[in-house]
Amino acid sequence: MKNTITLLYSFILCCSVAFGQNSSDKNTIIGKKVSDLLAKMTLEEKIGQMTQITLGTFEDKGKPDLVETKLAEGIQKYHIGSILNTPYPYAPTAKGWNDIMTAISKVSNKTRLKIPVLYGIDAIHGASYTQGATLFPQQIGMAATFNTEIVKKGAEISAYETRASSIPWVFSPDLDLPRNPAWSRIWESFGEDVYLTSRMGEAMISGFEGGDIGSKYHVASCMKHFIGYGSTTTGKDRTPSIIPERVLRQFDLPIYQAAIKAGAKSVMISSGEINGTPVHASKYLITDVLKKELGFPGVVVTDWKDIIYLHTRHKVAESNREAVKIAVLAGIDMSMVPENYSFCIDLLDLVNKGEIPMSRIDDAVSRILKMKMELNLFEGTIADSKLYPKFGSPEFIKEAYNAAAESITLLKNKNAVLPLNKNEKILVTGPTANSMVSLNGGWTYTWQGDKTDELAGDKFTILEALQNKAGAANILYTKGADLMLENDQEIENAVTLAKDASKIILCLGEKNYTETPGDISSLYISASQIKLALALSKLNKPIVLVLNEGRPRIISDFEDKMDAVIQCYLPGNEGGRALADILYGDVNPSGRLPYNYPRYPNSLEKYNRKYTESLATDEQNDDAKYQRSYQPQFEFGTGLSYSTFTYANLKIDKTEINATDEIAISIDVTNTGKLAGKESVLLYLSDLYASITPEVKALKRFEKINLAANETKTVHFTLNQKDLQFVNNDLKWVSEKGTFKITIGNLSQQFLLK
Amino acid sequence: MKNTITLLYSFILCCSVAFGQNSSDKNTIIGKKVSDLLAKMTLEEKIGQMTQITLGTFEDKGKPDLVETKLAEGIQKYHIGSILNTPYPYAPTAKGWNDIMTAISKVSNKTRLKIPVLYGIDAIHGASYTQGATLFPQQIGMAATFNTEIVKKGAEISAYETRASSIPWVFSPDLDLPRNPAWSRIWESFGEDVYLTSRMGEAMISGFEGGDIGSKYHVASCMKHFIGYGSTTTGKDRTPSIIPERVLRQFDLPIYQAAIKAGAKSVMISSGEINGTPVHASKYLITDVLKKELGFPGVVVTDWKDIIYLHTRHKVAESNREAVKIAVLAGIDMSMVPENYSFCIDLLDLVNKGEIPMSRIDDAVSRILKMKMELNLFEGTIADSKLYPKFGSPEFIKEAYNAAAESITLLKNKNAVLPLNKNEKILVTGPTANSMVSLNGGWTYTWQGDKTDELAGDKFTILEALQNKAGAANILYTKGADLMLENDQEIENAVTLAKDASKIILCLGEKNYTETPGDISSLYISASQIKLALALSKLNKPIVLVLNEGRPRIISDFEDKMDAVIQCYLPGNEGGRALADILYGDVNPSGRLPYNYPRYPNSLEKYNRKYTESLATDEQNDDAKYQRSYQPQFEFGTGLSYSTFTYANLKIDKTEINATDEIAISIDVTNTGKLAGKESVLLYLSDLYASITPEVKALKRFEKINLAANETKTVHFTLNQKDLQFVNNDLKWVSEKGTFKITIGNLSQQFLLK
Repeated sequence: MKNTITLLYSFILCCSVAFGQNSSDKNTIIGKKVSDLLAKMTLEEKIGQMTQITLGTFEDKGKPDLVETKLAEGIQKYHIGSILNTPYPYAPTAKGWNDIMTAISKVSNKTRLKIPVLYGIDAIHGASYTQGATLFPQQIGMAATFNTEIVKKGAEISAYETRASSIPWVFSPDLDLPRNPAWSRIWESFGEDVYLTSRMGEAMISGFEGGDIGSKYHVASCMKHFIGYGSTTTGKDRTPSIIPERVLRQFDLPIYQAAIKAGAKSVMISSGEINGTPVHASKYLITDVLKKELGFPGVVVTDWKDIIYLHTRHKVAESNREAVKIAVLAGIDMSMVPENYSFCIDLLDLVNKGEIPMSRIDDAVSRILKMKMELNLFEGTIADSKLYPKFGSPEFIKEAYNAAAESITLLKNKNAVLPLNKNEKILVTGPTANSMVSLNGGWTYTWQGDKTDELAGDKFTILEALQNKAGAANILYTKGADLMLENDQEIENAVTLAKDASKIILCLGEKNYTETPGDISSLYISASQIKLALALSKLNKPIVLVLNEGRPRIISDFEDKMDAVIQCYLPGNEGGRALADILYGDVNPSGRLPYNYPRYPNSLEKYNRKYTESLATDEQNDDAKYQRSYQPQFEFGTGLSYSTFTYANLKIDKTEINATDEIAISIDVTNTGKLAGKESVLLYLSDLYASITPEVKALKRFEKINLAANETKTVHFTLNQKDLQFVNNDLKWVSEKGTFKITIGNLSQQFLLK
Repeated sequence: MKNTITLLYSFILCCSVAFGQNSSDKNTIIGKKVSDLLAKMTLEEKIGQMTQITLGTFEDKGKPDLVETKLAEGIQKYHIGSILNTPYPYAPTAKGWNDIMTAISKVSNKTRLKIPVLYGIDAIHGASYTQGATLFPQQIGMAATFNTEIVKKGAEISAYETRASSIPWVFSPDLDLPRNPAWSRIWESFGEDVYLTSRMGEAMISGFEGGDIGSKYHVASCMKHFIGYGSTTTGKDRTPSIIPERVLRQFDLPIYQAAIKAGAKSVMISSGEINGTPVHASKYLITDVLKKELGFPGVVVTDWKDIIYLHTRHKVAESNREAVKIAVLAGIDMSMVPENYSFCIDLLDLVNKGEIPMSRIDDAVSRILKMKMELNLFEGTIADSKLYPKFGSPEFIKEAYNAAAESITLLKNKNAVLPLNKNEKILVTGPTANSMVSLNGGWTYTWQGDKTDELAGDKFTILEALQNKAGAANILYTKGADLMLENDQEIENAVTLAKDASKIILCLGEKNYTETPGDISSLYISASQIKLALALSKLNKPIVLVLNEGRPRIISDFEDKMDAVIQCYLPGNEGGRALADILYGDVNPSGRLPYNYPRYPNSLEKYNRKYTESLATDEQNDDAKYQRSYQPQFEFGTGLSYSTFTYANLKIDKTEINATDEIAISIDVTNTGKLAGKESVLLYLSDLYASITPEVKALKRFEKINLAANETKTVHFTLNQKDLQFVNNDLKWVSEKGTFKITIGNLSQQFLLK
């Protein structure tokens, strides 16, 4: 298998070289081409480039076919530069995309300057809007692998299959840093930690772009959603966030800084507001911080309808025209309008009346044309299917399987109830046990991911994978509960069937969702599922709780009655098989939780809390210990193995350092169990005292290693001064003299910054 | 009754005049006296003035008696300037306080300069640390009256009875603006609105201080807790708050601005951190904003142990000594140390070594001495009981009763199930039905308020008041449930007893608590109470749910099965009687909810939400309407009456105004019901578009009026330019041209700011 992959990469590399050139030469050439083209363009043509329209606008309502006159209106009359979204009623095949892009190209080729249309797509866990594509775990699961190589490979495959679909631009990765676990898009993120998210973001961008987006196997990535989108106070999507600038700079901005350094070609702006200012209206955040301070040279695109929403929802603009003015002056380059041409009309009027300078338009259009040229769109936008033999291939599927296998996180395993024995009779039950919809979640073939049972019918649900594994005779099944509706008969069926089983696999979770339709008002897992869990727990049979959910729904009403708990997040099309292999011990689990799993709905502390959120016993009031104590159901970083790993010899090369020193750290990790296994070694740093109240601990490094039974490896890390810094009240990154503590596993060492 | 009160006020006024002088003359005289005294003081004596110690330090551990040698250590050796707290084991009588103050005075009179000790006390709903004092509703109930006169009268009586206890300084009012309803001290606040809190705060300060704290009937007030204390992200007490300065200035700071203008003599600092900086360590907030920008001339005192906590909890100081340095340099005048003399020792060393300038010490001590002189402490600190004939008198009790009666809030009254008929048989049940502890909550005779059943045994619980009202024969009672422990037998008893009753009064709520012991992790009302409510709701008998709780515990599991819902908050010692009179219709309810009562634990929107938090139907996704919609269980301002009030003729004197104009508003309110009643007329303003996303509405004025049946009154309001302003991103208060909407009741009018 390894050889095959190497071959694939050689092939990709070879093609990249063919398309690639020395990057600074190329930049100069492209820069010249952009200014030449810009000089030829009318104002209307320029404004068209800044306009992005949804594909549905060109369809006969409720039919998949594109209407040529509608395309002509958009592309010839309004000169639009970009189209997005999947056709009615759901994801087409790669061939279907080919037809769509051919129809679009046909019209764009009729325009005066023949500027190709830039197509953008929500390919967020593989080419998830193309039938037959390889679907990976959603990002939260990719984060749980703690393996940047897997994330990078996943993005490479996603890029390959997206290009195979004739699409050159993906709205991915998601770089949001969610602060409320109820948020409906936490599963699209890499979890609650800035360091983990930064490293995973870099890996994904590097996988998508491969250093040359002109390659036929790479795409332009899009960082989203700049900035603070995942931090809404109430947890509801697109509601206000409150993030002081000091906090934004310390926790949210570094993720984008890393992503820009990794080469991200575009960015999508957050639909939310921060401290009363919608990000789409913030010249400070978009132009001063993102474009100037961070030096972002790429395309800034809005999210869905967000300029219009400045008027209708946020109410910072008295009219749509005013909204266009505010957003474009703030630094928006492209408007995802997306259902009409109002943006073109308003912007034209604003420029003609001198309310928006031509320099702003030229800046925006230059960025867009540059990306189109870097993508080699002028050389043609239609994929040659012969160049994509690996599309949906077993080789790619194996990578998606590996990602799922490394993401699935064993949270509890009392009395080693897992792995199961293939000869024992197992009851599989629960509303997510037999559902491809649940394994994938939203953004899968459709926006809400509601057609996955139909479109991934050849893939295996958890139930099917278990049946394949242990033989149908050993697997009893009944649904047990609906996700929402209570049904006592179903519970009774499950209870009755359980009597013939030695163990129960209880599959609970959530419906498919994203964005506003995923809003919830209570983090508790649904009542119908709690009822099922409690009923089964009375049988005194070991229960393995399998969580298949986009966000951590509260299970404290019955978690103590579960013998094992395993979180599989939204593991994608290969997730059922990976889970079955883990449950039966053919794969040793190695995922780790990328967020704190809350125990109670009004106790949503993060792992990198402040000391005041988890006081030492002697600082607590005797009568308040229970409620006050910091006690998530499972903490960030939790993840068990069927093996055991022992840490020893934590060494640091200096116990005192100066303000320019690095510090080298090493630790020996031994697999003291009987099975080979993977272990993510996490390094946390604690600043014991600081002028801004320090976090209890913060993740600063991680490395995933593979250890045979009895094998020992020495893991090396280097921390630098930047790792010791935080943002102070003057919004400066500073370190302060004093003692720091490094913790890896159960060991720690202190050093002094002099 | 009215004449008696007038006489009382004349009496107070007369005394005030005897003590009072022209205030600027007096300021000059006091200023001179302060500097003369300061000039005589040693550094040790100055530092002692800045030190506040808890009374327990002077007791023989576990006994109430003060130990003279311990007092001498504090007052003579360490020259301490202030003492706080109630003696072991709970509130003494006024006579008991007299003895304590006599013992303290005896020792302070032996000191070189005979500077009196300033005693401070948590008298927060009346003189709540004095047995026999008149206990009012807790602040959240006072807010619900929407009647500033009642609040002012309550504070006057509290001041009178505190002075009768020989104590001149109260740690009240609470000016916190809670942003999380789970916070354990929301009941100590005036609720979630900045305008309501500001007006109530002013009224309370004016009642406490009466314009002359030298009067024997007034006390120095203490604004608390400056600033942002009530806004912790997780809702847990003393955990971090995140409040951008723009938000702090728009919503938190105006409350303090109003309170300082009302004359507040002292301020207590928040124990929390804002954006990573503990407020006790913030020179910016304490010195630059509070003392300089707001011009606060009074005493800045810490909260309990908070300088020590800068080291042990917040970790911004590497030692206690460093913590003292940070806090004193930040602008702290007095340290509530409170259990040892470490503050004196560390501060002495810091000044001696030049790390804190003498000017800072002199500023602090001058402020403290000035307050002592203004309080006339140098003329004696012991109350002459003959001067306080009204202490705990029927006249005062009547005021507490009135406050409770005006606070109790009828939230629902399906089919006019209320008022009850005195001849019908009623089941009274629930864990709060027969509890003086529950009626009062924390800070009542003890810190946690756990001795109230014993110490207010002569007062009437809800059950007792109902029995008195309707006759014991008509009132069936069983407890029905414990507050925490589930007990099916109790539920069965209640269900059985209910069969003989025509209606059920179900009294649910919370245990007594404040601060950390009140922390919760789930906002749902306790499971034992939900179980009781659901069991009773199956009987098809009308149920009146009486809520007796410090914060809005979620009741959505059964609220739809309740026929009436009545919130009595923590109504104090007269609350049982007031509630009984309302339930039987002898008093017409007129309270209004001072916060949004949440329906779900992860949906905690405020009434003055942004438009993005409550989208219009056409802005919603069809599949998301239910969960997304803003739908608190009961909204801020909700409050029914047994009468009906009709609003008509909303008039504004201008439909266009300039940047200097005021706008006059009038509206006719008619009592269209059959009973006389009180109505709080609330005026909301909406800024339709603004550069900072506008609130859906904001309370700008209110007035409570009394209307006989069929009576009409015209209510007049005036709005000024300040009312149209908000804080922009430059931290300036600005108004912007455009349309504003005034809403009163179901009527609205728009005007244009040109």
